[in-house]
Amino acid sequence: MTEQKNPRIDAKLMQAWAQQCLQQAGATEPVAAAMAQHLVAADLLGFRTHGLMRLKYNVDCLQQGQTKPSGEPQVISQRGALELWDADLLSGLYVMPQAVARAIAMARDYGTGTVLVRRTQHVAALAVYLEQAVAAGMLIQMMCATPGQAVVAPHGAKSAWFSPNPFAIGAPTLSDPVLFDVSLSMTAAGKVRKALAEQQQLPYPALITAAGDYTCDPATFVQDPPSVLASLGGELLGYKGSGLNLFSELWTLALSQWGRHQEQAGLDANTVWIQVIDPSALGASEAFQAQAQALVDGIHQCTPITASQPVRIPGEGALARRKQQLQQGIEYSPQLLHQLAKLGDKLGLDLPPCL
Amino acid sequence: MTEQKNPRIDAKLMQAWAQQCLQQAGATEPVAAAMAQHLVAADLLGFRTHGLMRLKYNVDCLQQGQTKPSGEPQVISQRGALELWDADLLSGLYVMPQAVARAIAMARDYGTGTVLVRRTQHVAALAVYLEQAVAAGMLIQMMCATPGQAVVAPHGAKSAWFSPNPFAIGAPTLSDPVLFDVSLSMTAAGKVRKALAEQQQLPYPALITAAGDYTCDPATFVQDPPSVLASLGGELLGYKGSGLNLFSELWTLALSQWGRHQEQAGLDANTVWIQVIDPSALGASEAFQAQAQALVDGIHQCTPITASQPVRIPGEGALARRKQQLQQGIEYSPQLLHQLAKLGDKLGLDLPPCL
Repeated sequence: MTEQKNPRIDAKLMQAWAQQCLQQAGATEPVAAAMAQHLVAADLLGFRTHGLMRLKYNVDCLQQGQTKPSGEPQVISQRGALELWDADLLSGLYVMPQAVARAIAMARDYGTGTVLVRRTQHVAALAVYLEQAVAAGMLIQMMCATPGQAVVAPHGAKSAWFSPNPFAIGAPTLSDPVLFDVSLSMTAAGKVRKALAEQQQLPYPALITAAGDYTCDPATFVQDPPSVLASLGGELLGYKGSGLNLFSELWTLALSQWGRHQEQAGLDANTVWIQVIDPSALGASEAFQAQAQALVDGIHQCTPITASQPVRIPGEGALARRKQQLQQGIEYSPQLLHQLAKLGDKLGLDLPPCL
Repeated sequence: MTEQKNPRIDAKLMQAWAQQCLQQAGATEPVAAAMAQHLVAADLLGFRTHGLMRLKYNVDCLQQGQTKPSGEPQVISQRGALELWDADLLSGLYVMPQAVARAIAMARDYGTGTVLVRRTQHVAALAVYLEQAVAAGMLIQMMCATPGQAVVAPHGAKSAWFSPNPFAIGAPTLSDPVLFDVSLSMTAAGKVRKALAEQQQLPYPALITAAGDYTCDPATFVQDPPSVLASLGGELLGYKGSGLNLFSELWTLALSQWGRHQEQAGLDANTVWIQVIDPSALGASEAFQAQAQALVDGIHQCTPITASQPVRIPGEGALARRKQQLQQGIEYSPQLLHQLAKLGDKLGLDLPPCL
């Protein structure tokens, strides 16, 4: 496969280099370390559109003052098992692990712990924050919305109102954890742009044109007026995805009291809902893990549609990809390496060697 | 429309009659009152497959001992903002309002309140329990799974493992509340049976045959081996709905430590996740409601695909239906009225007159 031909770079070297770049761009050492760690973590799991592909963006945001290079998130309000934080435009890559840690601590006290973080810059893939809770034996649910963005249409509409709202969960089992991270729309803008660049049609009608037609044609996305992304469920079942998008935005934007009318249009400041549950509050942790394993085993034992493709658990592919890339280096496309090398040149930092 | 020709019966009279039927079947007065109230509430909102269409089923379950006629749910374990209840086969129609009330009380103390109820008989439509929290100014999220059932296929499978898992939310705004209640599969077994009875194809390929083909043909659902329900997202995006189904079952079955291997196959005992959030923990309640209203207003202001059909908010249609049916009586099909009259005859209770 073409994937095999891509160059590979050692993950640790790549992370250290990315951290240097971010420090060079102004981030303090702990901020840069967390940012580099979670961007590389996304690459390792295969969430490539949220990995070092976004390093230049993060460097630019630091240099242009859109992302704060230092500081700490502030607790705005709290009651028992629920806290609201304001990140004051610190990177989500730095703030999320702190918020997850706080949610874990609250779950130890109250059974559940919820932290809502508003105004946090680039969060990247929610998937990279899940294992922190799972390692503590806990379940985690995360949602993210972006009040400065409106690119997804509510069901029945041909204009956009929702942001691309990712939804993620993590849970421990007796074997590998469940790690699930999807958007609540039919597709993501990144996938549309990729299809456009490769002159491919989308595999399903995920866009709605200004005329109100569902289409697979990515060219409509750059027309004037452009097409918009459809909610999960599409033309006939989009009311389900649309309601899930509204759920996400009520639980993030409305609850954090920071809505579209308060945010600068186009800004990538996000509001993130993090909820952690400690199953040991309700019984033995091992008993929960055995139950989770039974659910996962039942899925594995289902009859596959294609005999050669066993039914998979969310996270299974990502964890296998990480294991392989930790051993053999992270794969980067020549295009991305070229872009990263250029960024390194600008910052006076040579990219680590390919393996 | 044909709907206009259906007979109508006064909602209060119908509820009183249904309560008498349930008492006649053995339920105590408070149990029967709650059961009748929430079945009629489903009819009022238009969730007809969860309304009095299920009265005979509930009477049968009481008479055959599958549903307990009296008693109270027990708290199995708890920590702070999280409780696990066992309903010991009491009706969900009776237990849910108590569990929601408890979750509201916990949210007042801890910001969020979560009650997980296992082994509760017929829960009907989650939608009918949402307004209790909304009336207290709170947000509510509910999920339900049924460990005795496996009718929905995980993505990539042609055999079933998940139960039909409804997902619901409610939230107050400055105007009507958001009320959202959908299944996480492509369709429900009831809709497939309806299409079959009416010799109609399904509007989208929501079934997976034993051969592994996605189909609109409801006849496959009664073949041997039968087709199974597809997860939301279908052939190409079913990994999203499949992950959401796994989310539902981890958060209900695994967390309540009552899984498929412990439940009698085919039994309608459910596990329900109820979580309530008090927005006043994070700021003024009115400020939250204004934010929720801004989200809803933005949806209303989107450009509709069909100019004559303004974009709707989840719950809008249901609330309008209830308003109309409270004034003009609840519509019942002649077939259902016939069935209810027969049930009344058996119990010695005449159906209220049509309006």
